[in-house]
Amino acid sequence: MQQRSEETRASILSAALERFSANGYEATSVSQVCRAAGVSKGAFYHHFPSKQAVFIELLEGWLALLDEQFKLVRSQSSDVPDALLTMTSMMGEIYRTAGGSLPMFLEFWNQAHHEPDIWDAVIAPYNRYQDYFASMIQDGMDEGSLRQVNPETTARILVALAVGLLLQGVLDPDGADWQQVSQAGFQMVLNDIIKQV
Amino acid sequence: MQQRSEETRASILSAALERFSANGYEATSVSQVCRAAGVSKGAFYHHFPSKQAVFIELLEGWLALLDEQFKLVRSQSSDVPDALLTMTSMMGEIYRTAGGSLPMFLEFWNQAHHEPDIWDAVIAPYNRYQDYFASMIQDGMDEGSLRQVNPETTARILVALAVGLLLQGVLDPDGADWQQVSQAGFQMVLNDIIKQV
Repeated sequence: MQQRSEETRASILSAALERFSANGYEATSVSQVCRAAGVSKGAFYHHFPSKQAVFIELLEGWLALLDEQFKLVRSQSSDVPDALLTMTSMMGEIYRTAGGSLPMFLEFWNQAHHEPDIWDAVIAPYNRYQDYFASMIQDGMDEGSLRQVNPETTARILVALAVGLLLQGVLDPDGADWQQVSQAGFQMVLNDIIKQV
Repeated sequence: MQQRSEETRASILSAALERFSANGYEATSVSQVCRAAGVSKGAFYHHFPSKQAVFIELLEGWLALLDEQFKLVRSQSSDVPDALLTMTSMMGEIYRTAGGSLPMFLEFWNQAHHEPDIWDAVIAPYNRYQDYFASMIQDGMDEGSLRQVNPETTARILVALAVGLLLQGVLDPDGADWQQVSQAGFQMVLNDIIKQV
């Protein structure tokens, strides 16, 4: 029974992801998600209070995966510049896994501007990544691999560059080799902040 | 008569900008724009074939203004790094003028993903700025102020950084001094590409 319930939950999430990506978050109804998942509305509302809750769970699941990958990279890296470069090489993977979902995130971010109650779910990950990279940059200064910079400002720059690159990659996937552009962009910022020996 | 007609056109554009920014592009109807502008639907359709045409004209007008400012800065700068730094100092002004409009652009970009026919209006400016900055970077290499880099890739990095910073600034205007963060970010990229003498 427990297993059956988890399967239902998983099929709702995967059907919602597919529908949101194909038609947009706003244009997708709970009924359409139910139809695609092959579940009743009752089953849907047993698992999720709203369409918005499904979206937030998808977003959080995706971010949790990214967090784990970051943690793994960091634990295997010799120093902060090494970790940042390895994370950059993961951008191609992020394009692949997020490619279909990013337009949906974009739509949701846009809606957040008009709906204060979903604001937190959107801004929280931003702040989390800013804090995460700020603490990495502080570690880099402490270990002597990075020159003295403002960790918060530098983290915002790295996050902005990543977001801008992802946005362009999603809007125009065939316009450039975005993995290569990303690598070159982060390398430029790193060249400037890595301590010269 | 000609003057009257131009005034009507201008009031439609300004009412549409206000409505799109306040309620979003999708949620705003032509009727609402007409009401806010104090014009009839007949007058609206005399000037614009569709709501989309109004949006594209607003976008193009804003970009034309930015182009003129860029041209002015470049003509008054001693070399390419000087011009790029002055352009960066204009980011604060862009935040101010675009602050209300950027969520609307975001919404439109997102729609472009689903509507191939408005794709061109969205991707064209991107490509234009990429070409513009690529040619500036080529000029910088030619004049000897920048080291040898790939101009297209570097232009994409600068545009991505600008877009990412604008997006974050719009989503969370009070989260940081975005003008200062922008200045620091472009300075980092420039530090890496400016030729050391």
